[in-house]
Amino acid sequence: MQEVKKIVLAYSGGLDTSAMLHWLKAKYGCPVLAFLADVGQGEDLEEIREKARRTGADEVVISDLRRSFVEEFVFPAVQAHAVYEGEYLLGTSLARPVIAREQVRVAQEWGGDCVAHGATGKGNDQVRFELTYQSLAPGIRVLAPWRSWEFRGRQDLIRYSREHGIPITSTEEKPYSIDQNLMHTSYEGGILEDPWSAPPEDIFLRTVAVSEAPDRPRDLIIGFHQGVPVRLDDRELGPIPMLEELNRLGGGHGIGRVDLVENRMVGMKSRGVYETPGATILHKAHRALESLTLDREAAHLKEELSSRMATLIYNGFWFSPEMKMLLGLVQEAQERVTGEVKVRLYKGNCTLLGRRSPLSLYDPEYATFETDEVYSQADAEGFIRLNGLRLRIASLRDGRTRQGREPVAAGS
Amino acid sequence: MQEVKKIVLAYSGGLDTSAMLHWLKAKYGCPVLAFLADVGQGEDLEEIREKARRTGADEVVISDLRRSFVEEFVFPAVQAHAVYEGEYLLGTSLARPVIAREQVRVAQEWGGDCVAHGATGKGNDQVRFELTYQSLAPGIRVLAPWRSWEFRGRQDLIRYSREHGIPITSTEEKPYSIDQNLMHTSYEGGILEDPWSAPPEDIFLRTVAVSEAPDRPRDLIIGFHQGVPVRLDDRELGPIPMLEELNRLGGGHGIGRVDLVENRMVGMKSRGVYETPGATILHKAHRALESLTLDREAAHLKEELSSRMATLIYNGFWFSPEMKMLLGLVQEAQERVTGEVKVRLYKGNCTLLGRRSPLSLYDPEYATFETDEVYSQADAEGFIRLNGLRLRIASLRDGRTRQGREPVAAGS
Amino acid sequence: MQEVKKIVLAYSGGLDTSAMLHWLKAKYGCPVLAFLADVGQGEDLEEIREKARRTGADEVVISDLRRSFVEEFVFPAVQAHAVYEGEYLLGTSLARPVIAREQVRVAQEWGGDCVAHGATGKGNDQVRFELTYQSLAPGIRVLAPWRSWEFRGRQDLIRYSREHGIPITSTEEKPYSIDQNLMHTSYEGGILEDPWSAPPEDIFLRTVAVSEAPDRPRDLIIGFHQGVPVRLDDRELGPIPMLEELNRLGGGHGIGRVDLVENRMVGMKSRGVYETPGATILHKAHRALESLTLDREAAHLKEELSSRMATLIYNGFWFSPEMKMLLGLVQEAQERVTGEVKVRLYKGNCTLLGRRSPLSLYDPEYATFETDEVYSQADAEGFIRLNGLRLRIASLRDGRTRQGREPVAAGS
Amino acid sequence: MQEVKKIVLAYSGGLDTSAMLHWLKAKYGCPVLAFLADVGQGEDLEEIREKARRTGADEVVISDLRRSFVEEFVFPAVQAHAVYEGEYLLGTSLARPVIAREQVRVAQEWGGDCVAHGATGKGNDQVRFELTYQSLAPGIRVLAPWRSWEFRGRQDLIRYSREHGIPITSTEEKPYSIDQNLMHTSYEGGILEDPWSAPPEDIFLRTVAVSEAPDRPRDLIIGFHQGVPVRLDDRELGPIPMLEELNRLGGGHGIGRVDLVENRMVGMKSRGVYETPGATILHKAHRALESLTLDREAAHLKEELSSRMATLIYNGFWFSPEMKMLLGLVQEAQERVTGEVKVRLYKGNCTLLGRRSPLSLYDPEYATFETDEVYSQADAEGFIRLNGLRLRIASLRDGRTRQGREPVAAGS
Repeated sequence: MQEVKKIVLAYSGGLDTSAMLHWLKAKYGCPVLAFLADVGQGEDLEEIREKARRTGADEVVISDLRRSFVEEFVFPAVQAHAVYEGEYLLGTSLARPVIAREQVRVAQEWGGDCVAHGATGKGNDQVRFELTYQSLAPGIRVLAPWRSWEFRGRQDLIRYSREHGIPITSTEEKPYSIDQNLMHTSYEGGILEDPWSAPPEDIFLRTVAVSEAPDRPRDLIIGFHQGVPVRLDDRELGPIPMLEELNRLGGGHGIGRVDLVENRMVGMKSRGVYETPGATILHKAHRALESLTLDREAAHLKEELSSRMATLIYNGFWFSPEMKMLLGLVQEAQERVTGEVKVRLYKGNCTLLGRRSPLSLYDPEYATFETDEVYSQADAEGFIRLNGLRLRIASLRDGRTRQGREPVAAGS
Repeated sequence: MQEVKKIVLAYSGGLDTSAMLHWLKAKYGCPVLAFLADVGQGEDLEEIREKARRTGADEVVISDLRRSFVEEFVFPAVQAHAVYEGEYLLGTSLARPVIAREQVRVAQEWGGDCVAHGATGKGNDQVRFELTYQSLAPGIRVLAPWRSWEFRGRQDLIRYSREHGIPITSTEEKPYSIDQNLMHTSYEGGILEDPWSAPPEDIFLRTVAVSEAPDRPRDLIIGFHQGVPVRLDDRELGPIPMLEELNRLGGGHGIGRVDLVENRMVGMKSRGVYETPGATILHKAHRALESLTLDREAAHLKEELSSRMATLIYNGFWFSPEMKMLLGLVQEAQERVTGEVKVRLYKGNCTLLGRRSPLSLYDPEYATFETDEVYSQADAEGFIRLNGLRLRIASLRDGRTRQGREPVAAGS
Repeated sequence: MQEVKKIVLAYSGGLDTSAMLHWLKAKYGCPVLAFLADVGQGEDLEEIREKARRTGADEVVISDLRRSFVEEFVFPAVQAHAVYEGEYLLGTSLARPVIAREQVRVAQEWGGDCVAHGATGKGNDQVRFELTYQSLAPGIRVLAPWRSWEFRGRQDLIRYSREHGIPITSTEEKPYSIDQNLMHTSYEGGILEDPWSAPPEDIFLRTVAVSEAPDRPRDLIIGFHQGVPVRLDDRELGPIPMLEELNRLGGGHGIGRVDLVENRMVGMKSRGVYETPGATILHKAHRALESLTLDREAAHLKEELSSRMATLIYNGFWFSPEMKMLLGLVQEAQERVTGEVKVRLYKGNCTLLGRRSPLSLYDPEYATFETDEVYSQADAEGFIRLNGLRLRIASLRDGRTRQGREPVAAGS
Repeated sequence: MQEVKKIVLAYSGGLDTSAMLHWLKAKYGCPVLAFLADVGQGEDLEEIREKARRTGADEVVISDLRRSFVEEFVFPAVQAHAVYEGEYLLGTSLARPVIAREQVRVAQEWGGDCVAHGATGKGNDQVRFELTYQSLAPGIRVLAPWRSWEFRGRQDLIRYSREHGIPITSTEEKPYSIDQNLMHTSYEGGILEDPWSAPPEDIFLRTVAVSEAPDRPRDLIIGFHQGVPVRLDDRELGPIPMLEELNRLGGGHGIGRVDLVENRMVGMKSRGVYETPGATILHKAHRALESLTLDREAAHLKEELSSRMATLIYNGFWFSPEMKMLLGLVQEAQERVTGEVKVRLYKGNCTLLGRRSPLSLYDPEYATFETDEVYSQADAEGFIRLNGLRLRIASLRDGRTRQGREPVAAGS
């Protein structure tokens, strides 16, 4: 085995990466830097820093990635209408590349020759971490202990942690796993594995049940500038407070739960449960504003490519040439996506109340069936006849064929 | 003007086609057959028959197309996940081809050389009617009076009707237009034209407001056989009662309203409001069952083509060679979409509670991160490394380039 | 009829637009500006200017659009690999928007309120001209005399021209029509309408027959910088001389003839014959260079979109939002398409001899089956096993089903 | 290591699989069945049978797969216009699944619990073999000795063969590798690895150099029935003789060479050289016949999916659900692809001379600009105006915006 000089571990403070931190030091006998990304998971980072040190980290680096995460990843994904398999808004998939990019940067700054992560060998996150490493630091060494060490499951880790004095929190004893960031909370595994059973109400951390939602709706107006949400009611908000506030409001009205059997990149189906209140509202509102300001064919082109983009994000290919091309295409379409959208949050529903824009392409005068100056109803006849010409010609051909008459084929 | 022998008019009994029936007889001086399609619009057809006769129809033919509509159009569209511009379930778009096909058949049976419809010159329905005519009866003459007659709007028609003793119903005086069938009700025009104003609550005919929905949820289980819903809770239901019952249940819980600015085929944007309770539930349930039983790449292929299919349906190309190819592709994917889906109807939400199938491809054993026999975690390393190989190679190339070192290009 | 103040006619000097110039003046009684675009059609423009004046033009404006045509239209289309229906390199389709854009500019500069063109009512060019007008000058009035005047065919025009003293050239008496520019020559109509007959050898203007091609091949090296051809053998060449020289060389070796039954936008099929020697070589060479320098998925994405781009160009949508998005995507991919391609021109064949680039992603070391440092053969096993996992799971499911054993579906 | 009972080796008689046969017996100590597929590689199969026996095979099974190969794989790929990266007609990719399917069948018939192949760890063929195994026999054990044994290259194998008395042919000493079947011959590796050097003339086995091609062209007529070639000039030919004869004719005129840098599924680029004379002619002819008989949108849909199908074939996913869906879609389009195509083979060119069909959709009467009964030139105006409506509306909007005038947005 080639010698390792310094390992930069993507550390969360949880059961897996705490045990891993200890195990890596023991196994490789080299310094381990615990890299902790703040993507808005809402934990006490200083406490985690302290835990890392006590567990044996030689260094601890905490990076606040929240703004990058929202601006460079969440908002572009909303603009792309990237939704995996019709449901999943990609909250975890979008966080992995921003974390792994910073992890690589930290490794380069601190002299790490090796990066490690705590993702398991059956999931998507290992792919997302490692594809990012490969794109941004092709020569770096990658350790994925879950694929190689002797532990086979959570119980083994709990045992190891107890043996080595690593503290365990109650969350870590939950019978399912959780991932949380500024965009969403996800749940999978354990008691959620039966797809015939609904997720138990008590797992949810950021949305109330519809039955508990307030009886009074909350109407709000979101202002967008070139596809980016910049105003909530009368307040100009930066990316982080915008998403936080929408999460708070949406969560309070039971918005944004998803329960999905999804197809992992590694080839099997798995069951995931998600809460994404703020981004659910943003998707709804952004679509509504594009419906007013974006040309039909531009919108349809985006739509045809959106599931492809979602799959690329889900599969970890954010930093790939094809993704760069597609993100550029989406960006080009955002230039005039400026205006306001009014939605109602109520009992789990995010209902559209209205949209308006100084750059609107909608004008009731065009659509109404009264006369106007831009549209001549007589045009429709030719339009339809030529759109149908190929159908008429084929139908005439098929009629001839069926009736056994002479074919008209040229040249025969 | 070439002489017309007999006109078959797609007659609804409403303001437009009643005036049109009278006008056609006056203008062309030939027999007019009023063709009335029953697509589940829920009106008294015998009353409409009577009205047609009194308005001057030489013949009246009523065809019950409900089963064809649901079986041949609605269910395949659900299987295709065909949703126009992310929202519209295509309730009117799907009804037009089944009506126009029968209208052509009636014309052929009754000796009509001309078909007429009441769609206006700015809308989508003229396209849908006429493309179907062109596909199925390429030589038939088509009359679209709205594009040629002297009337410019509803008020002109009301005046004409009053002058000629044609009765007018209260619906026809509503300040917006309605289309209704077994699948949906749509509203557009008039007071709905301002996209910044939410639709007034009192327009809705088949869904209660969320605020009026019952406090007790309704859970139901839908059984599918090869992509077709065949069982509701413990009852085997044919296509018509299935959709009727789901409409009733969904409507009672405020499910299936959509408010959309959409792009018409003729080139302008328009605002549409829709109620589609039953099909909304079916879309949700069918997707959930496919998530369990359909292969990932099959599902993604379907998904990438679904917006294209939606556009074809919206634009009136149901009877086209490309649609036939795509419908066949969807059909091929339905073979194993058999199983059950449990959903909850509650306060406007249709929430997934569970899905199961004897043909499930999901097995928690594959997805769990404990060991199993099908999946070896060690495989993941090679999988990721080779998926990332092209990224690593490109990154190495770009690194060399940036550093101004020697290129490694072969042959140079 | 609304009064016309000044007409700007896209004038070619040929039979149609000469008669049209005369006819427009007679019919509208207003000044007519003859706008003559130089897109490299290789005619004596001053002679045509003189003819325009003698035929009645009040003003004549000649614009040299050759550089714009090649730089902004031809090269991007090559980079997009835009080929209509697998064969047609879009020589005419690419020239129309550059002409119509300038025609609109001339109209704006010279006070024209009306633009006119000589394209017929069944072809593609009317669409291409008028969609460009609509995009760039939505309020301008458009005249398309072929769709409205009394003449029904070429013989009528010849008669009209003789009556009014408009000179007729021999080309105009050919039994087929020709369009020519710096990129290609096209032939259609008349004696070419029988798709079972090969085009007669004597129609071709810029390529020799393969049987007449020289026995000695011509090898050449084309250097590209970021997707743009900039060097031919040892000479740096600008866009115009580059395309001219490749036309001369390719034509001399019988390269670039196409004989196609194509689908027009207006709905019928037509037969077209094309000569595009230079661009045929460029397509071949550009593809070869991308094969070396462009990432696989970037290349496949481009390829999947290329037929769509070709259709947009063919249909006249160059100046559309969707085209702008797609051109941007292609442009993004060109950043590293830099290097050299060696081809042999010989007896109608343009054969690839080699390609090299300082930015190559190809390295024989990676591909050879001997060991290297980037690729571990052991990785392949996991890669294949996980790529096949979904197939194995489905096959296991189908095996169980066939054997009537117990299903393993979760939750059942 | 789990015990192996009987290995079925895909045996070619060449250096690799001969050494492998010997090595497998030595290593696993179990019976080895040498499975030899006849896909038209044109070798003496009985001689290879004898060699297998002498090298230690316990059983030898030879299966004639030529007809399946051509009917079920080659012709459908031609119908799909499946061409990988614009050049490669997939000769090897199409042969692998037919071989692997039969290998699995043989294993099941003869009691083999293990299949082995001779593909290397860096190439595509390992993927194609093993994905087929996984689809058709998910539980079978797979051995790919090149990924695990101690030999690192051809020289090691030659040494091993000499040590164990396994005869070596001269082909095996060539400085590049060859694959051959009824559809094509491929060359890669060794002296072909420099992409700046053209392949040496003396490697080609089935096509003459253009410079050696006869001076007299060969014109031929291919008759298709529903997309399948069934007649050559006046002879009805089955699939095998059809492809053989076209290979002979095309090869004699230097047709079908390709020189490509391609992207392998495992992530690197490689250089391949191919000779595919017969299928090159078939692709050209089939496209020409579809141009006459297939509807525009059906053709464009096929075209947009064709590169995706090519990638699936190249990557070994022939037996996948998505491929089945796509093949069905192509099949649907073949119903009326019946007629004749005339081509000329001459000096490396396969030139179209004509196409005709009793089911032609082309009629010069529609396309000519003289009047006809199906097409009214006046229709074009409305057609163009409505196709451009969205462009006009957007242009008006953008004009307003630029001029700083009041927006007309509804609701503001």
